Amino acid sequence: MTEPIVDQGVFAPVLTPFKADLAPDAARFVAFCRRLMKEGCNGLVLFGTTSEANSLSLDERMALAEAVVEDGIAPGALIVGTGLCAIPDTARLTRHAVELGCAGILMLPPFYYKGMSDEGLFRAYAEVIERVGDARLNVYLYHIPQVSNVPLGLDLVGRLIEAFPGTVVGIKDSSGDWDNTHALITRFPGFRVFPGSEVLMLAALREGAAGCITATANINAGPIRALFDTWDDDTAGDLQARVTAVREALQTAPLVPGLKRVVARMLDDPDWGRVRPPFVKLDDAATGALIEKLVAAGFDLAGKDT
Amino acid sequence: MTEPIVDQGVFAPVLTPFKADLAPDAARFVAFCRRLMKEGCNGLVLFGTTSEANSLSLDERMALAEAVVEDGIAPGALIVGTGLCAIPDTARLTRHAVELGCAGILMLPPFYYKGMSDEGLFRAYAEVIERVGDARLNVYLYHIPQVSNVPLGLDLVGRLIEAFPGTVVGIKDSSGDWDNTHALITRFPGFRVFPGSEVLMLAALREGAAGCITATANINAGPIRALFDTWDDDTAGDLQARVTAVREALQTAPLVPGLKRVVARMLDDPDWGRVRPPFVKLDDAATGALIEKLVAAGFDLAGKDT
Repeated sequence: MTEPIVDQGVFAPVLTPFKADLAPDAARFVAFCRRLMKEGCNGLVLFGTTSEANSLSLDERMALAEAVVEDGIAPGALIVGTGLCAIPDTARLTRHAVELGCAGILMLPPFYYKGMSDEGLFRAYAEVIERVGDARLNVYLYHIPQVSNVPLGLDLVGRLIEAFPGTVVGIKDSSGDWDNTHALITRFPGFRVFPGSEVLMLAALREGAAGCITATANINAGPIRALFDTWDDDTAGDLQARVTAVREALQTAPLVPGLKRVVARMLDDPDWGRVRPPFVKLDDAATGALIEKLVAAGFDLAGKDT
Repeated sequence: MTEPIVDQGVFAPVLTPFKADLAPDAARFVAFCRRLMKEGCNGLVLFGTTSEANSLSLDERMALAEAVVEDGIAPGALIVGTGLCAIPDTARLTRHAVELGCAGILMLPPFYYKGMSDEGLFRAYAEVIERVGDARLNVYLYHIPQVSNVPLGLDLVGRLIEAFPGTVVGIKDSSGDWDNTHALITRFPGFRVFPGSEVLMLAALREGAAGCITATANINAGPIRALFDTWDDDTAGDLQARVTAVREALQTAPLVPGLKRVVARMLDDPDWGRVRPPFVKLDDAATGALIEKLVAAGFDLAGKDT
C-alpha cells in the first residue's frame, strides 16, 4: 500500500516537550502532534528549528518519529528534519524517515563551516541523496540563513533541482525575504515553496507557493489553515491581517521559549514550558506580557483550551 | 596508574584523512598523529575545526580516538573536540574521552541557535559537565566566533571558571583578536589560554599563555615548537617572524583543503588531498600557487618529506 503524501498546505514544525531531566517527552509529543492535526494542520514537520531539533541526539529524533507513527499519524503527513553537519548522520536520519514512509525530509545544509562554495554545498546534498539512494525520497531544502548562517542561493537550488528531478521537490524559505521567496516560486515552476512564516502566505499562495511551514501553527493552526483554504476569496486579506497580527505579537518574545510557555498555558500543563539549553525558559513576567500582546492581537487563548 | 597530562605547549588540531568512499582513514590518521608528535607537537587535538570534526559522526570520532590510543600515543597528550549542538551527544563524546584517559576535551558551545544568552550557554556547558560528573574531566572552552558564530564572552568564561574550578581549565581562543586573548590571560590567572594561531604565540607566551593550538602545526610543528621552547630568548622575535610568514602564506588558500594538499605533497600521498563536503578539494593550480607561496615564505617542504 502506498501512503498518500501530503505535499501542500499548512505544516507546524512541532515543538518538542521535555521531562524534568530534559529527556524528550514522547507521550506529550505524540498527543501534541495529534492535537495539531485536529486543529487544522495539513501536515507536521518533526524536528525543525522551532522543535529544538539541533538540541536532540539522533537516537532521540528517531525514537520520537517512531512514536508519532506508531500512534497512528499517517507518515505521509510528516516531513522530518534531518540536516546535520556530518553527512553520515544526515544520511542515517534521512534513510530512517524514508523507511518510515514519511512524506519528505527537510534538509539543512551542513551548518558548522561558513563561507562554503555552492560546489561544496551541492556535493553535501548530493552525497546524502546518493547514499540514501531511494526513489521514495522527497527532499525539501531548508533555507534559514539568519540561524544556519549558511544561505542556499538560487543558483544552488536550481542546480539541485536539475540534478535530482523528482527528489529535490521543494524548499522551506525561512529567510523572511519576499524577493527570495518570489524568485524561488517564479524561477522554478512546480517546485514546492513553503514560506517559513504565515506573514508572507497570502502573497506567496497567489504566486503559486505550496503552503506554509510556520512556528505559529503550534498555537494558531486553525486560522492559518483557514487562510490557506480560502486564499482566493475576498475575505483572505482580512484573515491574513489577523494571522499576521498574532505572529507579530508572538515575535515580541524569544520564539521557542515563548511558544512553549503559551502552549503550557493553553494546555494548563506547566511542564510544557521547559527548553533545552542553550535556550532559557521564558520567565513569568515575560510570559504574562507575551500573552497580553497575543490577546490584544485577537488571539483566542481560551477557545483553544480543550 | 595515572597518566601524566600535557597541559601546555604546541598542539596540532590533526587533519582527518579520508578513503575514496569518504570514510575516515584510521591507518593514515594514526600514522600522521605519530608523525606530528615526532615533529615536535607537545600534544594533539583530535577533532578541531581543522580536523573537519563537524563533518564526522559520533561513531567515527570515537573509533578514531580509540585507534590513536591503541596505537600507543599517550592519551595524556590528547585533547579531544567534543562540542556538538545536542547536549546528549556532547556528553557522550566527553565521557568517552575521559574514559580513554585523555588530557582534556575542547568544547564548542552549541552552535546552531544564534544570539543565545550567556545564561543559556552557561547552562549548556554546565549540563554537560554535570552529566559527565567525573573529577578527571578537564574542559577547554572553544572560542571561534568567525566559524561557530556563537562567541564566548569574558563574563561567561569567568562564570564557568568560578562554577567549575579544576574542571574548566582553559580555552582555545581562535578569534585572532589580540585584545580578547590578552584579556583572557590577564583576567583569569592560572587559566590556560591557547591562541588559535601561532601568529600571536610570542606575544601571548610573554603574557602567560599556555601555548598554542594551531592548524599550521599539521605542516610546521618543528619551528612552532622551537618558538614555544625558546620564547624567552633573544632569537624569539626572528623565529616568530619566520613562523608567521609561513602561516600568512598558508592563509592565501582555503585552510583545510590547502593543508591537506600540502600534506599530500609532503608525504607523496595524493589520497591525503581528499575532503568531505561541504569542503572542496583544492585544485592543482591553486595547490601549486600555495606551495610556491609557502616556499617563498621559507617553508622547507623537502626537509619534512621523510
